[in-house]
Amino acid sequence: MDQPQDGAPDTAGEARDKTPRTERGRRTLRKLLDAAAVEFGERGFHEASISGITRRAGTALGSFYTYFDSKEEIFQALVRYMSEQLRDHVTPLVQAAPDEISAERIGLESFLGFVREHKEIYRIIDEAEFVDYASYRRHYETTVARVRQRLEAGAGRGEIRADVGEIHAWAIGGMNVFLGMRYGLWDEDADISEIARIANDFVANGLLKRN
Amino acid sequence: MDQPQDGAPDTAGEARDKTPRTERGRRTLRKLLDAAAVEFGERGFHEASISGITRRAGTALGSFYTYFDSKEEIFQALVRYMSEQLRDHVTPLVQAAPDEISAERIGLESFLGFVREHKEIYRIIDEAEFVDYASYRRHYETTVARVRQRLEAGAGRGEIRADVGEIHAWAIGGMNVFLGMRYGLWDEDADISEIARIANDFVANGLLKRN
Repeated sequence: MDQPQDGAPDTAGEARDKTPRTERGRRTLRKLLDAAAVEFGERGFHEASISGITRRAGTALGSFYTYFDSKEEIFQALVRYMSEQLRDHVTPLVQAAPDEISAERIGLESFLGFVREHKEIYRIIDEAEFVDYASYRRHYETTVARVRQRLEAGAGRGEIRADVGEIHAWAIGGMNVFLGMRYGLWDEDADISEIARIANDFVANGLLKRN
Repeated sequence: MDQPQDGAPDTAGEARDKTPRTERGRRTLRKLLDAAAVEFGERGFHEASISGITRRAGTALGSFYTYFDSKEEIFQALVRYMSEQLRDHVTPLVQAAPDEISAERIGLESFLGFVREHKEIYRIIDEAEFVDYASYRRHYETTVARVRQRLEAGAGRGEIRADVGEIHAWAIGGMNVFLGMRYGLWDEDADISEIARIANDFVANGLLKRN
């Protein structure tokens, strides 16, 4: 169940260094990745093509091969790119929160906002399960590791219970991914602040009655 | 993002009634579905074949076409079958629980046990996102609807807070799916009773410190 499919490379194709050295190169690389998000998001991995990506990016085919060797390689880079974009969107907002409980509310609300703006994220990350399992797993492991770090820091500051750890982090990660699917991806109209508020009250207080 | 891929039928191929009428027919149908779980679980939808399924089932090709018109159709039936097997495994255990908080603990523990025994469930349900989106969505919607029903019944009996609803149900559903992936699928050795106990304490009490 955990082998990559369709000949996707298992290792992070980092044999030759294709990191752009100039600002112009970085811009082209970002254009290719943004175009790849649309191409893979709309057509899926198998139907997507390199020429579809370069057409959408408005770049020459040669530019593609400056940075990537194959469709598998740009897909793998795209999973990491989306994972990092999500992190860069959520992290500063979470870090500005006054305490760990608020941080979890803001983390969820900003994630729901990100999903609304980047609906293709579910399809791309989820397809990685079949195209490049290592990337799929790494995305969730790194995302959940960030949640765990927040929880443990909050516990260290005495804001939440002291016994939080990995299990709580996976629970919150899964909760956020499902709320994102239900209320970010499927439901355009749900009030994401209200969803985050209700979910956060559950995260803070649990199901038991409080007085 | 929500259209089915690869020509999978969008409607529930129920045009002609292929429900088996005899016990022998039901047995053959179950054999085909169990074989399909192995074939799709090991090879994925695109690599899987009808002859691979009948070979594993030890049935003639004709038996397949008695019950299914295509690979898409048995895949769709398989998603529903796995969803129902999971329900039939979890529901009686949950219903025997003394209260709603215990029911959620038992629900998670029995789900983790089911995943250990049926590792292919993740790959099959998740591939439905690409092969038959309607089945994918229906699986989660019906699973979460059961959680919601439990929560609201527990609230009605005064065992948990009165304001539980759909958002709490999606939160718990996501939590369980992620804990299942992390500790059922990826980690053979984790003590699933202990995972369920810790997660359940979080579900009951939340992150805040209690005295």
